[in-house]
Amino acid sequence: MAKRKRSEKIGLPPGSLVHVGEVKKHLPRITVIDYDKDNIEEKEVHEVEECFPFKDKPSVTWITVDGIHDADVIRRIGKHFGFHPLLLEDIMNTEQRPKMEDFGDHIFLVLKRLKYSAGEMKTEQISLIIGHNFVITFQEEEEDIFSNIRERIRKAKGKARGLGSDYLAYYLIDSLVDSYFLVLEKIGENVEELEAELIAEPSTNTIQKINDLKRQLLISRKMVWPIREVVYGLERSESPLIKKTTLIYLRDIYDHTIQIIDNIEVFREMTSGMVDLYLSTMSNRMNEIMKVLTMIGTIFIPLTFITSLYGMNFEFMPELQWKHGYFLVISLMVGITVGMIFYFRKKQWM
Amino acid sequence: MAKRKRSEKIGLPPGSLVHVGEVKKHLPRITVIDYDKDNIEEKEVHEVEECFPFKDKPSVTWITVDGIHDADVIRRIGKHFGFHPLLLEDIMNTEQRPKMEDFGDHIFLVLKRLKYSAGEMKTEQISLIIGHNFVITFQEEEEDIFSNIRERIRKAKGKARGLGSDYLAYYLIDSLVDSYFLVLEKIGENVEELEAELIAEPSTNTIQKINDLKRQLLISRKMVWPIREVVYGLERSESPLIKKTTLIYLRDIYDHTIQIIDNIEVFREMTSGMVDLYLSTMSNRMNEIMKVLTMIGTIFIPLTFITSLYGMNFEFMPELQWKHGYFLVISLMVGITVGMIFYFRKKQWM
Amino acid sequence: MAKRKRSEKIGLPPGSLVHVGEVKKHLPRITVIDYDKDNIEEKEVHEVEECFPFKDKPSVTWITVDGIHDADVIRRIGKHFGFHPLLLEDIMNTEQRPKMEDFGDHIFLVLKRLKYSAGEMKTEQISLIIGHNFVITFQEEEEDIFSNIRERIRKAKGKARGLGSDYLAYYLIDSLVDSYFLVLEKIGENVEELEAELIAEPSTNTIQKINDLKRQLLISRKMVWPIREVVYGLERSESPLIKKTTLIYLRDIYDHTIQIIDNIEVFREMTSGMVDLYLSTMSNRMNEIMKVLTMIGTIFIPLTFITSLYGMNFEFMPELQWKHGYFLVISLMVGITVGMIFYFRKKQWM
Amino acid sequence: MAKRKRSEKIGLPPGSLVHVGEVKKHLPRITVIDYDKDNIEEKEVHEVEECFPFKDKPSVTWITVDGIHDADVIRRIGKHFGFHPLLLEDIMNTEQRPKMEDFGDHIFLVLKRLKYSAGEMKTEQISLIIGHNFVITFQEEEEDIFSNIRERIRKAKGKARGLGSDYLAYYLIDSLVDSYFLVLEKIGENVEELEAELIAEPSTNTIQKINDLKRQLLISRKMVWPIREVVYGLERSESPLIKKTTLIYLRDIYDHTIQIIDNIEVFREMTSGMVDLYLSTMSNRMNEIMKVLTMIGTIFIPLTFITSLYGMNFEFMPELQWKHGYFLVISLMVGITVGMIFYFRKKQWM
Amino acid sequence: MAKRKRSEKIGLPPGSLVHVGEVKKHLPRITVIDYDKDNIEEKEVHEVEECFPFKDKPSVTWITVDGIHDADVIRRIGKHFGFHPLLLEDIMNTEQRPKMEDFGDHIFLVLKRLKYSAGEMKTEQISLIIGHNFVITFQEEEEDIFSNIRERIRKAKGKARGLGSDYLAYYLIDSLVDSYFLVLEKIGENVEELEAELIAEPSTNTIQKINDLKRQLLISRKMVWPIREVVYGLERSESPLIKKTTLIYLRDIYDHTIQIIDNIEVFREMTSGMVDLYLSTMSNRMNEIMKVLTMIGTIFIPLTFITSLYGMNFEFMPELQWKHGYFLVISLMVGITVGMIFYFRKKQWM
Repeated sequence: MAKRKRSEKIGLPPGSLVHVGEVKKHLPRITVIDYDKDNIEEKEVHEVEECFPFKDKPSVTWITVDGIHDADVIRRIGKHFGFHPLLLEDIMNTEQRPKMEDFGDHIFLVLKRLKYSAGEMKTEQISLIIGHNFVITFQEEEEDIFSNIRERIRKAKGKARGLGSDYLAYYLIDSLVDSYFLVLEKIGENVEELEAELIAEPSTNTIQKINDLKRQLLISRKMVWPIREVVYGLERSESPLIKKTTLIYLRDIYDHTIQIIDNIEVFREMTSGMVDLYLSTMSNRMNEIMKVLTMIGTIFIPLTFITSLYGMNFEFMPELQWKHGYFLVISLMVGITVGMIFYFRKKQWM
Repeated sequence: MAKRKRSEKIGLPPGSLVHVGEVKKHLPRITVIDYDKDNIEEKEVHEVEECFPFKDKPSVTWITVDGIHDADVIRRIGKHFGFHPLLLEDIMNTEQRPKMEDFGDHIFLVLKRLKYSAGEMKTEQISLIIGHNFVITFQEEEEDIFSNIRERIRKAKGKARGLGSDYLAYYLIDSLVDSYFLVLEKIGENVEELEAELIAEPSTNTIQKINDLKRQLLISRKMVWPIREVVYGLERSESPLIKKTTLIYLRDIYDHTIQIIDNIEVFREMTSGMVDLYLSTMSNRMNEIMKVLTMIGTIFIPLTFITSLYGMNFEFMPELQWKHGYFLVISLMVGITVGMIFYFRKKQWM
Repeated sequence: MAKRKRSEKIGLPPGSLVHVGEVKKHLPRITVIDYDKDNIEEKEVHEVEECFPFKDKPSVTWITVDGIHDADVIRRIGKHFGFHPLLLEDIMNTEQRPKMEDFGDHIFLVLKRLKYSAGEMKTEQISLIIGHNFVITFQEEEEDIFSNIRERIRKAKGKARGLGSDYLAYYLIDSLVDSYFLVLEKIGENVEELEAELIAEPSTNTIQKINDLKRQLLISRKMVWPIREVVYGLERSESPLIKKTTLIYLRDIYDHTIQIIDNIEVFREMTSGMVDLYLSTMSNRMNEIMKVLTMIGTIFIPLTFITSLYGMNFEFMPELQWKHGYFLVISLMVGITVGMIFYFRKKQWM
Repeated sequence: MAKRKRSEKIGLPPGSLVHVGEVKKHLPRITVIDYDKDNIEEKEVHEVEECFPFKDKPSVTWITVDGIHDADVIRRIGKHFGFHPLLLEDIMNTEQRPKMEDFGDHIFLVLKRLKYSAGEMKTEQISLIIGHNFVITFQEEEEDIFSNIRERIRKAKGKARGLGSDYLAYYLIDSLVDSYFLVLEKIGENVEELEAELIAEPSTNTIQKINDLKRQLLISRKMVWPIREVVYGLERSESPLIKKTTLIYLRDIYDHTIQIIDNIEVFREMTSGMVDLYLSTMSNRMNEIMKVLTMIGTIFIPLTFITSLYGMNFEFMPELQWKHGYFLVISLMVGITVGMIFYFRKKQWM
Repeated sequence: MAKRKRSEKIGLPPGSLVHVGEVKKHLPRITVIDYDKDNIEEKEVHEVEECFPFKDKPSVTWITVDGIHDADVIRRIGKHFGFHPLLLEDIMNTEQRPKMEDFGDHIFLVLKRLKYSAGEMKTEQISLIIGHNFVITFQEEEEDIFSNIRERIRKAKGKARGLGSDYLAYYLIDSLVDSYFLVLEKIGENVEELEAELIAEPSTNTIQKINDLKRQLLISRKMVWPIREVVYGLERSESPLIKKTTLIYLRDIYDHTIQIIDNIEVFREMTSGMVDLYLSTMSNRMNEIMKVLTMIGTIFIPLTFITSLYGMNFEFMPELQWKHGYFLVISLMVGITVGMIFYFRKKQWM
């Protein structure tokens, strides 16, 4: 797919809304859910302005924008909610690093979702703005990644729905962090497969697979470290937008990120052990080949020398006239062969 | 054994009590010990509710729940003691990282026990809740790992039994940390065996064993680092649940964790030295084989050339008619052989 | 090109204005832009003194000095603006490390621009002095690297032009940091090319290319880490020269520098994985060659032995008189060959 | 020698006095020195109680206990001086990590002495308790390691003897840290020997020696890092037991520990460079062997082919009838040989 | 040259003036410069006491002691100026680590000068005592390393000479740090030479040269890191001996030390890349040799087999009687050779 590169932004003034990422044509899908303890209202809108009335209601409003390639939609949202141009710029730049920024009356989060499809690891940027009674999420793909949360909100009358926008944000972040556990389990399976392959039958492209694994771990690590910082920052932010009761939930996500990092580090060390294992297996194979070569040489070269000796055309070679000369030479050669084999057994080359 | 994975929890709301770990069918075993300076009462209960009356007595109550796969039991305990849903969730998730959380009127600890059975290293999650006059422990297996502590309590009238729940908690943590020393001694023995094997007779699967060792050290390290943080956190927590006199004991455990970490790091460096040693031993073997091959070549190839020379069928080859031609050639070949051997000795190839 | 080295400065008193870098003869090009919300004035001057009157005007003055080899020009500027001799010395020493120094009424920044020309990575030192209502930039080359910013100022009436000298400085730093993204994209392309080459057809100089890549990453890292510190220092400086509204823009640059560092680290780890891949590919090739050699040996050596056997000149060798002796020997040799090939297939050497 | 392991302590209550280390039978040797500016009294006691009267005298009392395997002696000292059970436990556990603990009216130090005997590096645990006017030292071996300090005290009337117990403690710590310099000098000599060996004549067990060196450096490092922390802790402790004038001496020891650490790190890097050097030397040797093999092949194989060619029994081979056929072939072979040697010189294989 | 070792000091009381370093016989050379804005007085003294009167004059006095092996001279200086015995001990111990100590009315610095002579890197210890209006420097060698500073003082009437002893100290430290730039330039040249050698013609001792380079970088790093700390400490010391105006100069030296460290780290990474490059070049050579061997084998072995075949002495071998048998066989062999060469080209072995 065509991709707009980061470099195309160079030279533009700050706050320029340029989409960095895969080029797309369709309009972004915008949905809104508005709920409080007792009521819930859901709809998919065609013009972003349809969402704006919800902002002033005391109930929690969650606006999702699936697709961030349309600068116009994002500009209109930004204008109505009073977002800083740099914030909007960051939403559209999919090469952004996960980060948190506290703008006082709203908190801006950039996060990354990991997914594993067809042996390839992909990342998707999810931006999140937490306001007093609203949450806005922006995602790259149209795929409805938060459907289970939507479902949970629909069902969970009272309890969870009475909690504010910060709890909704926790829900969303938690489900993103969960995507890392899924990817890690996949990587864990790959690690196990590769180890089995290394022991049983390493082939020429095993090292290639190890390198692929290493790269996936590199990407995961690059993504999850800043997410840890984001969650930590959120926990320590002392923003009035984050209620005290939500802190323990953030702490829980924080623990998850550390757990993910731990696992990544273990996998990383395991893959470097694999490289050693691979190289030594390969060199053991080479040794085996060399042994065969050496044994052939050690056995046949003296034999061939002897045959060659009695192929000389000297007029006076007494052995040639011996009646049993031929059989004696054959016996000698059998003796040498047996001696050699005995020697190899002792040297443990066979 | 079947294992429920972490990923099966994805999509569930926070506080969902789902057991992550080996699937088990039997009921968890629950025992309770209640003691003060003078009295002690022990029993095994069938319904968890039987433990609850002990809570309000001024004596120290220690409830052990062996088996954490039964969400119902854990929920009922949680409800009676007023534990946060996330705390209960963490107890049931055996892939938890060791951690400490201070909930004000109780402290929650997740710890890991290491054990070494049949050459495999296994971890078991032990959760610990320290309350004002009670301690509750949750463990994965039914095996009675704290029997020696129970014994100690029974015997130690007065002195140790007069100390509170924090001292009991210290007892329990200390015995868990001790399990690491046992595993480290085992690993230390493995390291020594492997080193002896490396020097004497490295085989193709030595590198495999080194890698196994590395992984065990990785797991140990992953477990013990957070335990160090837990103990440090407990020491610094300033919780009223931890008495001043207990601090010196926690400090002692802390020193033990550092000692364990030190040893793990030393073992880790030693195992990476082993990889070098293995690879160089293997390449030395290869060199030895190559030397044999070269010596055979160097000695026999010229000899075979000479014999081959006098096997040519030219009509006019004066040497062939010489009376002692054959013996001269034999002498020449002996001379070459001796010269070669002398050369090899000089080059230290023999 | 001739280059004056750092060592030529040794022994000179501090504040000695000695140019370290490529020797140049031409005069530096000096331009000045003076602007406020409504007006803008641009000119190229021949004597640096022509710029001085702008200093006292309330509008923002941006003086650019393209070429830092002329000590006289820099001394005259320094004298008029009251810059410390060490500051002037640093401007002329192109082996300076990026840094920030707050002199109270002006802030001095040393930065580095990266460029990629003809497969070589080059750095150019850019010095920046931020005063109350002026910015002075010094650059090594005459190339007009800030033309797009000049253009932006010309066009952006009102909004951006109303902001002070700190915002102009942000503009300049941002465009320098952008130059790193460009270089990183180039490096990323090189990484991809090299990986493809490694898999398809590694040649003897592939390792050389990997090493070149490593060095470029080393240089980039050496440049960007201190720039990160510079931007961080500027953000935290609490200098009255930096307005609060500018801080969010500096934070944005800071995020960019971290993103660049992240990418460099990922590339660095990828290149070390490449070395493994290269070495293992090379050793696999060697294995392949050895296999061929072994197979030739294993097949032909016994055959040649047999032919040699029947080339012996013993008088009494019964097989030689057999009518079908020759054909039997041929058949034997075909049999041995077929057996060998079968054995190799089983051993997976073919 | 039999050794009691750390694991034998597992399951015992805290403060259990169990000796971990080499099993010994004899009684510990106990000596006491009591001195002030003018007087000095020395004796060797048989019952530890004989030392107790000195405690209440204003003069400085130094009690040495050589041998820590006797729990009874240590318990009696602990009881009289009011030491915490954990402190006594630590004295007897020789697998303790160097540490400092401030108990208010006394400071407890665990230190390690290094010694190098018969190519083996050994550690000995030295415990030190600094009280108001006394110092008690416990050491594993009976060897009188502090004799020079005793001598110094005897001679140094006035000056040094007027200083308190903290100065005596400094004396003792300093002499322990000095033992590291001795070991480092030994290691330095080993490093130099190994390097010479690597360049001149690396043998199969050179890598083994490098690994031994690495392990010694690992142990030294494991010992000296915590000693650095101990000295730092003592310096920063603000304990009234440490006088201000003693601080500069502690600072001096601290500098020494850093110097030792620096040297260890340098040696560590040098030994890893040695592994590279060893492996490359070995692979160079292999290359040399391969070259010989190739040269033999390249020279003799074509020659043998030619001789073999003219050993064929075809009836019609015109060269065989040529009068100078044989000499022509000999000349051809000499030509080929000379050509080959010329080629090898060009390729720099000879 | 004979060298007194650190270990010879072991067992001596603190403050013992024992020279550690090269043994020398001659007397140290002592010079004194005394200057203020207007006057300057220089002389070389024979007895150190001749310098003492200058101490009480308000002008800046700089005493240089070239040679630190004479304990008597140093003791007399120490006594007159009231230096702590440990300070004097440190001056004489040339294995001291660079450090700074603030004694209130004077600051003591230990620094190291690097020099590069005859391919060897050497360090020389320079001690510096900064007092209110004096600076005393002690150096190991008699070589006049500060002559250019002396010259600068003589010439720079007024300006620099009006500044106090702290500015003189800055001068001296700066000139020492400059010595690192010189050594780094030398190392940089070595790095470039080695890289060129690696690409063009790596020989067996190239790895040796790389290791030498690594060691030089290790030593430089070991020296410059603590110097960085020293300069940082001086900057942050808040000692009244360091005037505010001098701080910016110290900051400048600090920047230089960081620049040196940066360069050392870059060189270090480059040298480890070189090891990879060397090993892969060596293994490529091996591959080339193996290829030649394989090609010879692959071409000649079948040929020799054929000739050997027709050298058999069977009575009934029809081909031998064919008229063109010989030429047919020759043609067959040419055909095989051409086929082989074609095959090798395809396999890219030629």
